[in-house]
Amino acid sequence: MSYEESYLYRLRHSAAHLMAQAITELYPGVKLAIGPPIENGFYYDVETTTSIREEDLKKIEQRMRELAKLNQPIVAVSAKDREDARRIILEETTLGSGPEVAEYKLQLLDAIPEGDPITFYDQQGTDKQGNAHRFIDLCRGPHVEATGEIKHFQLMSIAGAYWRGDVKNKQLTRIYGTAFETKDDLHQYLHNLEEAKKRDHRKLGRELGLFIFSDKVGPGLPLWLPKGATLRETLNDFLRDEQRRRGYLPVVTPNIASQRLYEKSGHILTYRDKMFPFMQDDENEVFILKPMNCPFHIEIYASDLRSYRDLPVRLAEFGTVYRYEQSGELAGMLRVRGFTQDDAHLFVTPSQLGDEFKGVVDLMMVVLRQLGLSEYRVRVGTRDPESTKYVGSDENWVAAEKAIVDACNDLGLEFEVSPGDAAFYGPKLDLIIKDALGREWQMGTVQVDYNLPERFELEYVGEDGQRHRPIMIHRAPFGSLERMIGLLTEQYAGAFPFWLAPVQVNILPIADRHNGYAYAIAEALQGFVPAREVTEDELEFAPVTVESVPKWRVEVDARRETLGKKIRESQKQKVPYMIVVGDQDVENGTISVRSREDGDLGAMTLAEFVAKAGDPNA
Amino acid sequence: MSYEESYLYRLRHSAAHLMAQAITELYPGVKLAIGPPIENGFYYDVETTTSIREEDLKKIEQRMRELAKLNQPIVAVSAKDREDARRIILEETTLGSGPEVAEYKLQLLDAIPEGDPITFYDQQGTDKQGNAHRFIDLCRGPHVEATGEIKHFQLMSIAGAYWRGDVKNKQLTRIYGTAFETKDDLHQYLHNLEEAKKRDHRKLGRELGLFIFSDKVGPGLPLWLPKGATLRETLNDFLRDEQRRRGYLPVVTPNIASQRLYEKSGHILTYRDKMFPFMQDDENEVFILKPMNCPFHIEIYASDLRSYRDLPVRLAEFGTVYRYEQSGELAGMLRVRGFTQDDAHLFVTPSQLGDEFKGVVDLMMVVLRQLGLSEYRVRVGTRDPESTKYVGSDENWVAAEKAIVDACNDLGLEFEVSPGDAAFYGPKLDLIIKDALGREWQMGTVQVDYNLPERFELEYVGEDGQRHRPIMIHRAPFGSLERMIGLLTEQYAGAFPFWLAPVQVNILPIADRHNGYAYAIAEALQGFVPAREVTEDELEFAPVTVESVPKWRVEVDARRETLGKKIRESQKQKVPYMIVVGDQDVENGTISVRSREDGDLGAMTLAEFVAKAGDPNA
Repeated sequence: MSYEESYLYRLRHSAAHLMAQAITELYPGVKLAIGPPIENGFYYDVETTTSIREEDLKKIEQRMRELAKLNQPIVAVSAKDREDARRIILEETTLGSGPEVAEYKLQLLDAIPEGDPITFYDQQGTDKQGNAHRFIDLCRGPHVEATGEIKHFQLMSIAGAYWRGDVKNKQLTRIYGTAFETKDDLHQYLHNLEEAKKRDHRKLGRELGLFIFSDKVGPGLPLWLPKGATLRETLNDFLRDEQRRRGYLPVVTPNIASQRLYEKSGHILTYRDKMFPFMQDDENEVFILKPMNCPFHIEIYASDLRSYRDLPVRLAEFGTVYRYEQSGELAGMLRVRGFTQDDAHLFVTPSQLGDEFKGVVDLMMVVLRQLGLSEYRVRVGTRDPESTKYVGSDENWVAAEKAIVDACNDLGLEFEVSPGDAAFYGPKLDLIIKDALGREWQMGTVQVDYNLPERFELEYVGEDGQRHRPIMIHRAPFGSLERMIGLLTEQYAGAFPFWLAPVQVNILPIADRHNGYAYAIAEALQGFVPAREVTEDELEFAPVTVESVPKWRVEVDARRETLGKKIRESQKQKVPYMIVVGDQDVENGTISVRSREDGDLGAMTLAEFVAKAGDPNA
Repeated sequence: MSYEESYLYRLRHSAAHLMAQAITELYPGVKLAIGPPIENGFYYDVETTTSIREEDLKKIEQRMRELAKLNQPIVAVSAKDREDARRIILEETTLGSGPEVAEYKLQLLDAIPEGDPITFYDQQGTDKQGNAHRFIDLCRGPHVEATGEIKHFQLMSIAGAYWRGDVKNKQLTRIYGTAFETKDDLHQYLHNLEEAKKRDHRKLGRELGLFIFSDKVGPGLPLWLPKGATLRETLNDFLRDEQRRRGYLPVVTPNIASQRLYEKSGHILTYRDKMFPFMQDDENEVFILKPMNCPFHIEIYASDLRSYRDLPVRLAEFGTVYRYEQSGELAGMLRVRGFTQDDAHLFVTPSQLGDEFKGVVDLMMVVLRQLGLSEYRVRVGTRDPESTKYVGSDENWVAAEKAIVDACNDLGLEFEVSPGDAAFYGPKLDLIIKDALGREWQMGTVQVDYNLPERFELEYVGEDGQRHRPIMIHRAPFGSLERMIGLLTEQYAGAFPFWLAPVQVNILPIADRHNGYAYAIAEALQGFVPAREVTEDELEFAPVTVESVPKWRVEVDARRETLGKKIRESQKQKVPYMIVVGDQDVENGTISVRSREDGDLGAMTLAEFVAKAGDPNA
């Protein structure tokens, strides 16, 4: 059953009416516009003479509770005809406030197609003081039986909204609320909202020193601070290593190209609205900021005569691309104008397609495992059987769709098939990740492409000595570094796993006389002498050694602050481990370890700590 | 003594006259334009009725030798006045060919300022057959005494050149030659030229699979092939590691910014001619493709309140920038339109300037040592005492110039001071590298900057609690990855040192039955199972192990080609080591090693090979 057919949907619709009823009582003369249920609740757009503010929501909510308790039956009323409907709007729904409050409802009536039934929903009741209450609204329904069913709700926020979504119309006040069937559901939802706010990557990005935006640089163009850049490096290094093992070859290509490249690829026709304005020079050359890496990788493939023995050719690049999103649509790292794809293109023979596709999906699974993203859906986008927009032969499409389905089956992956979700040039597989709060994020994708090899007339010499056309696979397991770091930040609420944390260990000397010991430990853990100024008060220690240097990312907090303050700040920075060193530690050659999750772990030797922290299951 | 004052300069000038004399005899009616000595030789621009081609150069050279042997004295002749000069040009220099051949010389005469002396140089002689020879030319001189001194010369090439360098004028034929004092010097020069051709990074870049250019992408925009990208990664990883040890922090910034950023930095005024055309969108925002990283790093510095305790802040980025060079000026990797700087900006207090500058120069020395570039000059660019273009206080300039000179002295570096070579915003230090052929390359640079901190109103809170302005240091040890890889390719003629070679070891199985053993060795050397198709004929071997995996870049050449062909190709690809494996090796558990430089090294165990190849002094 879809959400639109559910009881919850009706409940929220009725909650919108209940809110409207409360508002008509509290704000006489209010003009009501529309009030539908939406994904996580409902809203109503209203026009009032005195403006409604956030602090008024409690008052409206209170009146809603009182009205709910009256358990007013919600009754459908059919208008006999359009004239009758007009009369009901003007005489009944206005509840005596005069015809002018019906302004928007009359327009809504006009928009109902000729011949469609016209219904109203009417709720009436009397309170203990004997006062009559009523609300009747032009509405398609359906609703719950009576207002008493609306128990677990909360008003959320206020926003502006133009009548009919048109900026040329009057701006109305939109009041958002939510409602659930049970108290637990409501609390879970509100808790998740709170949690989502705490995990907001834009907030954490700033607090943890990951990235900033700058007005002078422009919207949607993030600047990565040292800790964010370290996150990127760590992700890049991990994937680069995995890819090397799998026979990918690195390439590096420019961020701009002549428009000739995108004319050849066809992007100049199909993708122009996402391209930045073109750059035309005095020599009559037009440059385009690159929105995608594929045509460059194709130029590299085409720069040499390839034999079937050379295939598959797997070209990988962490390629930074620019897409012109409308400034209003930019959102933190989730929608930016410049981002780095963990891109690769595989050029394969038809007989290699199955194995190579499977290899790509296998790599994506390894990536998800490493990132701790265990909940995901796999969606296979196939042709819409009705449409004619697709290029390439039926035979190719059948083979490619089979390759994808076989790969999923071989890897034991559950998947859903989504007909019509294929690109015009070939079928694809999308990964949709469910994060710690149950929200879904579309991330990595794998696409089969018959179109670009055709357009660029790519070739390889087959075993038969003849020229053949290779097939391309586009793939990006992360999707983009920006989006993936946004997701990971929210998934972990900034508490990145040990291997990924920008700072893995923070060493906190209690007093200046422990600094030398602290730096010696830092050296043993990171593999080099920390860059620092040596202060006079520092004791210098013989080097502390561990059997094999783990090369971790380590900081020493040698500021003259209290230990309490240093621990709090380290905790706020979500550093996985703190090492506190004081007199006792210096004397015994031990360290006192605190874990981000488990607090004080007590004193231990450095070797014990390395064994513990280095174990991903610890 | 400068080149212009040297005997060699006069000798080459006289060689140009000698060539002109030969041409007037071989091409009657030739019009002579100008014929100066230049850096490595001389040229003469001429207009002939029958065109001169490369194959004619030998004939001209031969005639030059005959004329040289006559040992004609070269005599200066002063014209009495302009009218006399005109007469000499028309009557004497034309040697009876008619006044029209004097066309360019008459224009040259007109260009001599009023009052300047006007001289001619006249050479005459008679050959054994009794034929008289003469050449007289309008010329400032000086020359050698007689043509007999011109013994060691060679004509080099022919090019087109517009009269007075103006495309609107007629195109003349420019004939290049060179001349030296000794036979050895000439041979050395010709040898170096040959060597330079062999080492040409554009040629080797293609042969070794380092990079390509693509017409569809556009001139000056290299695409890095897998082996070139691996070179970049290796250089990046090396420097990233060195920088991390020295307390540099990585950042990542976009390739574009709003023009607001460059208005603030002032680059939009001072640097506009090197910027790509601007991109103006429909929201009235103008984006600029970034020509330099500094303003972005400044935005990052300025995003947080800094205390003197936080300084120095050292922000590092392998930042790709775009500069609009004229298409005619592009030259391989030496002048490109898009390149990646190994950039960093240090924000320091005045008291830190000396130490930080020294730290930067020290890092540059470490980089040069690692790259095997042992010959270089250090040039310190200071203010031109006459000029007023400089910004900042005298006090600052004195302090900064002292910091640079002290750093060089402390590090025991010889340096030359070049007054007037400072940027307008601060003094600098340049490294000029001499390559294996003695050619100089301007590479890394360090600049002190008082201007940008001022323009962006950068601050830090000092020990006194007051706001102070930091000083910036710009630096790039490689200069750019493109230029550095161009230089290294020529320096090593493509035979990169072991640590840098894109493929370090090439394993060559003699027959299919040795493939399994070859792959097992590859696994032991690179640390992972090679990605490959397993063929039926392959024997599978127990894993070959080494004590600690060196993680080298290894390839296996399992093609069914003769060993001779595989060795030749590997040698052509300049792979440092080849490992040949056959029956004997499989049986004994050994490998047969060939070195790029020393040929066959015989059979050894894998452990022996790892010890040998891993030793940078081996």
